[in-house]
Amino acid sequence: MTGLQPYPNIVRLSSQRLRRLAAGVLVRDGVSEGSAMQASEVLCTADEWGISSHGVARLRSYHEMLVQGRINPKPHVRILRESPTVSVLDGDNGLGLAVAPEAMRLAVDRGRELGTSFVAVNNSNHFGIAGYYAIQGLDQDLIGIAMTNTPALVAPLWGHGRMLGTNPIAAAFPTRFEPPVVIDMATSAVSLGVVENAERRHEKLSEYCLQTADGKNSVDPADIFKGGALRPLGGQRETGGHKGYCLASLVDLLCGVLPGASWGPFVPPFPIGLGEPGRVVGKGIGHMFAALWTGSFCDPASFRDRMDHWVRTMRATPAVEGTSGPLIPGDPERKAAEESRMLGVPIANSVAEDLDLLGRELGIRL
Amino acid sequence: MTGLQPYPNIVRLSSQRLRRLAAGVLVRDGVSEGSAMQASEVLCTADEWGISSHGVARLRSYHEMLVQGRINPKPHVRILRESPTVSVLDGDNGLGLAVAPEAMRLAVDRGRELGTSFVAVNNSNHFGIAGYYAIQGLDQDLIGIAMTNTPALVAPLWGHGRMLGTNPIAAAFPTRFEPPVVIDMATSAVSLGVVENAERRHEKLSEYCLQTADGKNSVDPADIFKGGALRPLGGQRETGGHKGYCLASLVDLLCGVLPGASWGPFVPPFPIGLGEPGRVVGKGIGHMFAALWTGSFCDPASFRDRMDHWVRTMRATPAVEGTSGPLIPGDPERKAAEESRMLGVPIANSVAEDLDLLGRELGIRL
Repeated sequence: MTGLQPYPNIVRLSSQRLRRLAAGVLVRDGVSEGSAMQASEVLCTADEWGISSHGVARLRSYHEMLVQGRINPKPHVRILRESPTVSVLDGDNGLGLAVAPEAMRLAVDRGRELGTSFVAVNNSNHFGIAGYYAIQGLDQDLIGIAMTNTPALVAPLWGHGRMLGTNPIAAAFPTRFEPPVVIDMATSAVSLGVVENAERRHEKLSEYCLQTADGKNSVDPADIFKGGALRPLGGQRETGGHKGYCLASLVDLLCGVLPGASWGPFVPPFPIGLGEPGRVVGKGIGHMFAALWTGSFCDPASFRDRMDHWVRTMRATPAVEGTSGPLIPGDPERKAAEESRMLGVPIANSVAEDLDLLGRELGIRL
Repeated sequence: MTGLQPYPNIVRLSSQRLRRLAAGVLVRDGVSEGSAMQASEVLCTADEWGISSHGVARLRSYHEMLVQGRINPKPHVRILRESPTVSVLDGDNGLGLAVAPEAMRLAVDRGRELGTSFVAVNNSNHFGIAGYYAIQGLDQDLIGIAMTNTPALVAPLWGHGRMLGTNPIAAAFPTRFEPPVVIDMATSAVSLGVVENAERRHEKLSEYCLQTADGKNSVDPADIFKGGALRPLGGQRETGGHKGYCLASLVDLLCGVLPGASWGPFVPPFPIGLGEPGRVVGKGIGHMFAALWTGSFCDPASFRDRMDHWVRTMRATPAVEGTSGPLIPGDPERKAAEESRMLGVPIANSVAEDLDLLGRELGIRL
């Protein structure tokens, strides 16, 4: 349930045009047409869902990494280990946006056949929004789970320095008439996007979301660019910061250490100027996907009915004064997606200008 | 990584004596000797680990529920659904402390045979500390996961009223020379135990951990006994309260809705005076266990080595001033367990007196 991150000045672009542009850039960079279309689908879905920090705003970074040879445009994804319910893939340093969808498809197929499945991936790169993967098996009665580790930005409780990523967890549950429950959350108190937005607007952050380079509590978003670190979900000890640290660790262990990807402070950076890890302890970024067929546990139709009941029950909780009342996980993204369908996909002016420039640099006409 | 909850006045009892007493009480209540010993093992482990809120302090409540016929002393645990990697059990309203260990044993056996396994349980009762279950397969190279839903005490973000339990998540990872990583965390900002301790000491709570009956932020622990609710991990919206709500929901959906147990506000209460749910939507309390053999994903020996490296790396993070530096999940419990071995198990005077009384009521001599 990543929050909307409204930009002060946005333009609304057609979804089709955005996808064609993103795919066009990646094809120019040597990515196969199929993979480029898949990657652009993941990227543009983020913008459509209102998660602009993970959308086409990152296209130039992917482009640069491809141009610099830091991402392999034509990976040969290999199966490293395989048993009926577990597959481990080597992403061959390909675009996470193309490798991860392939891994999730495998998880969905195996989950449907065998009841449950896990697919772990090493040697990959950023995969965009975790929620995209979790929803892939909903129409086949699969609960989907997706996680990834990410470059270190978060301090463990009582430590200073960036030791863990914002390591998101996503999970999606099928329903009948109600919208599906779609959880997608970073395990840090706030995301880097929230800090960046606060800086852009000259606003302070809430207490205990951020710390300075020497570990002191900070509300000044600028500190993240001076060697500071995000705090784990829960913030300080008294409000559960140790729990956020546990969650970030859980994701790092399952996605990084288990399949032999990099982990902790050694995860390779995304080119947003956040420094280089000191040492290679595994291959690339790691992901973990799981798919659980509800029919392994109960009657899938009854499950959908019970899910509807659960959703209606939570939604009916009396609202705290000054709020709209509890949301269902996935609501903000659904609302944004509906607006994107009606009005076009919201893109920050600065991002739209850069996309235009990028397109012209590469001779892409839309 | 549940925090220690030191009592002002404790007595140190021998672990053996405590176990014999707890098992003796349960046997008097009609529980079979094997189940009583298993249940007392889970209960006393909590005290040994310093998690006194989940230990023998609850023995009288279990006793009363057995005497009142609210828990079935001699359950016939049935398999409701079975496939190679998924089992769903009906706990026949038995003691969770005896049903859950049986379920986890099944998860461990199947996980070792088949690479991964899930065991879901409905119609159970409180199972004690989640971490106890997660560690059961460590010596067989199994990552263990344990969750349970619990009676509603937590408000969803922006809602008032108790709609979700403190729904813990536990996960344990094997290591070689370093101690295992053992995560065990409620998904609420603080536990009920923390609130109770604060009230006992006339202390205030941190901001945004608790709300009044009408949803207003509160720092007064007494509000939990006046219809208030705990806040989810993250507290308010700005610091990630929606994420704690997502996590509590995840656990409720996997443990409650999926295997057909009760869920949300309808989970049957533990007799601590927190009201009765309005409606029956499923059978009892639900648990979910999983066991992942590391050999399904990589070489198990290399995994243990990488885990050691991860533990040493996190432990080496520079300490924030005024703290001991980052802990490894499981450290507080290990420290408490070591003290318990050396000095005896710490039991609050009031609890020790009540245990003594309970023993005498039932004619148990130690």
